[in-house]
Amino acid sequence: MNKVTKAAVLVSAIALLASPLAAKKIKWKLAMTWPSTLTPLASPPARVAEYVKAMSDGEFVIKAEGKEKHKAPLGILDMVKGGQYQMGHSGSYYWKGKDINTVWFTSMPLGMTPSEQYSWFYYGNGMKYMKEVYDKFGIYNYPGGNTGNQMGGWFRKEIKTVEDLKGLKMRIPGLAGEVFAKLGVSVTNIPAGELYTSLDRGTIDALEWVGPGMDIKMGFHKVAPYYYTGWHEPASEMQFMVNKKAFDKLPKKYQTMLEVAMKAASFDMYVENFSASLEAWDKMKTDFPNIKVKTFPKPVIGAMKAAAAEVYEAYATKDPKFKEIYTDYKAYMKKARAWSQMMQGGYLNLDK
Amino acid sequence: MNKVTKAAVLVSAIALLASPLAAKKIKWKLAMTWPSTLTPLASPPARVAEYVKAMSDGEFVIKAEGKEKHKAPLGILDMVKGGQYQMGHSGSYYWKGKDINTVWFTSMPLGMTPSEQYSWFYYGNGMKYMKEVYDKFGIYNYPGGNTGNQMGGWFRKEIKTVEDLKGLKMRIPGLAGEVFAKLGVSVTNIPAGELYTSLDRGTIDALEWVGPGMDIKMGFHKVAPYYYTGWHEPASEMQFMVNKKAFDKLPKKYQTMLEVAMKAASFDMYVENFSASLEAWDKMKTDFPNIKVKTFPKPVIGAMKAAAAEVYEAYATKDPKFKEIYTDYKAYMKKARAWSQMMQGGYLNLDK
Repeated sequence: MNKVTKAAVLVSAIALLASPLAAKKIKWKLAMTWPSTLTPLASPPARVAEYVKAMSDGEFVIKAEGKEKHKAPLGILDMVKGGQYQMGHSGSYYWKGKDINTVWFTSMPLGMTPSEQYSWFYYGNGMKYMKEVYDKFGIYNYPGGNTGNQMGGWFRKEIKTVEDLKGLKMRIPGLAGEVFAKLGVSVTNIPAGELYTSLDRGTIDALEWVGPGMDIKMGFHKVAPYYYTGWHEPASEMQFMVNKKAFDKLPKKYQTMLEVAMKAASFDMYVENFSASLEAWDKMKTDFPNIKVKTFPKPVIGAMKAAAAEVYEAYATKDPKFKEIYTDYKAYMKKARAWSQMMQGGYLNLDK
Repeated sequence: MNKVTKAAVLVSAIALLASPLAAKKIKWKLAMTWPSTLTPLASPPARVAEYVKAMSDGEFVIKAEGKEKHKAPLGILDMVKGGQYQMGHSGSYYWKGKDINTVWFTSMPLGMTPSEQYSWFYYGNGMKYMKEVYDKFGIYNYPGGNTGNQMGGWFRKEIKTVEDLKGLKMRIPGLAGEVFAKLGVSVTNIPAGELYTSLDRGTIDALEWVGPGMDIKMGFHKVAPYYYTGWHEPASEMQFMVNKKAFDKLPKKYQTMLEVAMKAASFDMYVENFSASLEAWDKMKTDFPNIKVKTFPKPVIGAMKAAAAEVYEAYATKDPKFKEIYTDYKAYMKKARAWSQMMQGGYLNLDK
């Protein structure tokens, strides 16, 4: 071909190719339960969007919207199921009212640690159960970032005996609230914006939030001196939800990009929160040297364990799938905990 | 255009586009220190290759070679530096002889845990120092998968006092070997294939390997009854090395694919090894109920800490960069450990 013909061919080729290429561009929307600025919870969606965009050369873009935009923080499951959003980022235990078995994929009171739970997800039966439970919603569910073991919360008074829990007014939602209710705690639910004032004025005696990294922004350390180590959410994993039909329509390469990006971003969140917490705790104890870190006394822990077992047994009696997962989870945790105690516990004990 | 012209244009367009498209296909080679079947160490390279291939639709392929092929397990750094391989997978502390500061990116005796070290890498100065140290080799270095806290090793006799270490013949390489040598241990190096027989016959009194998941294949639990919890490699991170020139020439989208795949595959390895270890430990203690898990007594730990500090101080005196990193590492670890004790330690102690 001479130059002119070559140029003409190229122009025609570009014209011919332009429309199928443009049609290939994929635009998704993701809705998250949190405000889009609330790190570290809002970080995994932002990172997935960033990774996928870069890896696809801008051909696959995901627009992440915080609750300030969609106004439906607890409507995420329905919106992803319905296809208004192709993706969601939330916490699986928020869907307890739709299916009790969604609770297994966030964290269980007195349950597995992050390492144990990830092992159960990927090398035990965790992901298999996750798939089964979410199948009916037309959703693929994936781990979406772990907070690590959450702190047991801020208390105005020290808890010395099981008796001290009776009548205690505490904000502690979910299964942990059910466990504490069995021990006589008056479990209350108060909007986030009112928590600080409620704790300061004694409207409530205690509350749990997350851990130093997120708690410091709420200011609880200024008004309640006892900071208890955790028991109720030892490994809270967030969740990515993906509408099945939307995912199945993706070219294979974009499916892999999404899955690899979600895994990397989940790991990022654990590290981000660990780092934010160690810095925040360092600042808190410097600025407020009177904060007392406490672990619940043995008899209180014993009572919690008994109450948690009662809560689990009751659900297992009502729901055969709950019973199946509970049996598997307990057996796996027993093996995993023996190793955690040797590996992590053994090392941390060298400081003592 | 009529149909015939259109067809002609398309054929010409395909001809024109075919050669640049074909030229775009990128084929890389990766050399790893381990045999390509030695999981979990060999898993991250295999997963990166798999992820990148799928994400690029087969346009970016990485061929991973184990030491059975390239025969140079400790030549990886040089081969990546020289460009014979675009990538390597190894352990940073193997390059201690080239630059003492490479040791910071694997694990330090009595140093940070995996969570602490990842925080230091990504939110402290770890990655900054990693970049500085590897810059002179023309290599980008990345975290490449963590083993978790390694076990202190298999001992034929119980270690009750610091005196018991004197004259003890042990296979324990690297900085930990230097620390133990200060306490009178006779540190030996024996090829992997001879370790079992050496321990069985008493040619050596003790050895360390990794943890239950990898140790079980070596059979040490059949010949030495004391299994000590770890101190010497609390967070061994493998490394991915990438030749800078090769990386810089990659299209941006492939650079991101590679980085995201390496991060996901590193996280995968930690979970894989945790899972393999919990299963292996469960099996070991069932099959060999006489194995005794021990933690070194307090005075022995105290002596190790003092000896480790001496080793670090000596390197810091000789090497200003070592001193700079050591100072930063110690300060970060202090803050991080306070949080680890509250978060992980506090929870594991509930079992006691």
